[in-house]
Amino acid sequence: MNKPIIAIHGGAGVITKNTMNPSKEKEYIKALDRAINIGSAILDKGGSACDAVERAVMSMEDCPLFNAGKGAVFTNKGVHEMDATFMDGALLNAGSVSKIASVKNPISMARIVMTKSEYAYLSGREALDFAELHEIEFEDNEYFFQQNRYDQLLVAQSLGKSRLDHSEIPKEVKNGNGNKHIPNLESDLPDEPEDKFGTVGAVALDINGNLAAATSTGGLTNKKYGRVGDSAIIGAGTYANNATCAISCTGFGEYFMRTVAAHDISCLMEYKGLSLEKACNLVLNDKIGKMGGVGGLIAVDKSGNFQFCFNTEGMYRAVKEANGEPLIEIYR
Amino acid sequence: MNKPIIAIHGGAGVITKNTMNPSKEKEYIKALDRAINIGSAILDKGGSACDAVERAVMSMEDCPLFNAGKGAVFTNKGVHEMDATFMDGALLNAGSVSKIASVKNPISMARIVMTKSEYAYLSGREALDFAELHEIEFEDNEYFFQQNRYDQLLVAQSLGKSRLDHSEIPKEVKNGNGNKHIPNLESDLPDEPEDKFGTVGAVALDINGNLAAATSTGGLTNKKYGRVGDSAIIGAGTYANNATCAISCTGFGEYFMRTVAAHDISCLMEYKGLSLEKACNLVLNDKIGKMGGVGGLIAVDKSGNFQFCFNTEGMYRAVKEANGEPLIEIYR
Repeated sequence: MNKPIIAIHGGAGVITKNTMNPSKEKEYIKALDRAINIGSAILDKGGSACDAVERAVMSMEDCPLFNAGKGAVFTNKGVHEMDATFMDGALLNAGSVSKIASVKNPISMARIVMTKSEYAYLSGREALDFAELHEIEFEDNEYFFQQNRYDQLLVAQSLGKSRLDHSEIPKEVKNGNGNKHIPNLESDLPDEPEDKFGTVGAVALDINGNLAAATSTGGLTNKKYGRVGDSAIIGAGTYANNATCAISCTGFGEYFMRTVAAHDISCLMEYKGLSLEKACNLVLNDKIGKMGGVGGLIAVDKSGNFQFCFNTEGMYRAVKEANGEPLIEIYR
Repeated sequence: MNKPIIAIHGGAGVITKNTMNPSKEKEYIKALDRAINIGSAILDKGGSACDAVERAVMSMEDCPLFNAGKGAVFTNKGVHEMDATFMDGALLNAGSVSKIASVKNPISMARIVMTKSEYAYLSGREALDFAELHEIEFEDNEYFFQQNRYDQLLVAQSLGKSRLDHSEIPKEVKNGNGNKHIPNLESDLPDEPEDKFGTVGAVALDINGNLAAATSTGGLTNKKYGRVGDSAIIGAGTYANNATCAISCTGFGEYFMRTVAAHDISCLMEYKGLSLEKACNLVLNDKIGKMGGVGGLIAVDKSGNFQFCFNTEGMYRAVKEANGEPLIEIYR
């Protein structure tokens, strides 16, 4: 009998008390509280880590605050291309999707790829045929349209960058037709730093000692060329193994892919005997950080230890042990 | 000063002396000999491992015998969706492409993604905009059309499977329009078992001690739903790290993705002190094999050791040390 635990994140980035207004802060805390409690309630009733992480991530996908599902950012072409990965540490089974539009909960699709498909990873429009076959829930463009996300795209495009640097927000930008558009800087942009590395994720240990990890994202605002990040890659942004730990990452995905970050943490524990804390810090700080990569990760191990690890200003995060109170944090 | 070495593979599968005719065998040996010598010549002149593996893989992509580039198999929709990954072990830098059509040499595109893109992984039609920008060579549909590949698709579709089981080849199949079509079983199908896990790859150590790995594939005949395999995934089908080794895999990609196979071999060497041979065998036999996965891999380590490892009947493969003679093998 293990003592269940679940941890979640809602993305890492330049999130400081100074750039956050109090009402927005409350909204984030409420959304994190909702997600962690949904997952925790499943674990407390003896439910599986797989169910807990799926439901917790779905809750964040359904919330427009986070860059995943309903709140997914826009690509360079003004569309959504969402990525997600689900991994079951008991069976070392996994499923991924990338460049998915219209699917309400990409994390559920990733789980169904894991359980129902002969393949482990489906991508793009053709993957929607699989989604239809398995009666996965779709939503229309209106559901996914958030004005502040669209403003972020226009700002990013006017800066000619795929990521948004808040020190350079212009007062006025032009949209695709050359028309002037004034982004609502006051209410939107400064409060949404997670557009930089917004991603949601959950990791859990259940009463039976099973670990699971789930990650879902809309990727980078203004991303081009069919860019796919670490959230779609088993071993990079997501990994779970009952022998070691479960991990979900957020950040500059290219660094997490090059370092095969989530799997590396598991290997450092399994092959080198490192603690969860040491393994997470080594990969995030000594590898990704030294390469110039920024981001964060959440992890729980088979003994029920947890880690929040990030080299950004902040990371939306929460953790809850069985029958305990949730710990919810945003800033460093 | 290291003694350079290069190893290549052209896919693993049910390749036995019985199912191979002598003229086809000669063609494969000639193609492997050409590719290994192209790569080796670069190393012998003091060239880089990156250049050697790229040119060796390009040579196999240009040869219709292998399931990559010109010889790529057809998807369920009768098109090509090619995947490739390139990794430079000196910088731990990498680039991947997936679901790429029309690009003559996907491995070169993967390398250009690594060196010229802010992203590590591009996928699908939008990635071709990047290819155009960097003047990557395109070819038309005619270049990629091989009658025997198309016959394989029709056979696979008539069997309702995404992979071809040679024990069940029908004498007659129907094409997409319901017309009867008789595949040329005698000359094509029995000689092309690599359609099952056809992939090409190269790994090399150069005179400066730098390691590199490259993998390219057309994927599975009749693949559906935008399936992407391990050849597009850094750490799964391809990995290189100057501290350990360089690896390129071929086989039932889903198992290599779930086990993060190539990265796992590197971690077993780095964190547990295993030899290249022990690490390769542990991952392929004790992990992938026990899960039910089949395939193979090639590897060289930082000391110049090499490994061929496969649990299939055969694997097209070759290795050449500096100023030595190439060793070329097909069967177990």
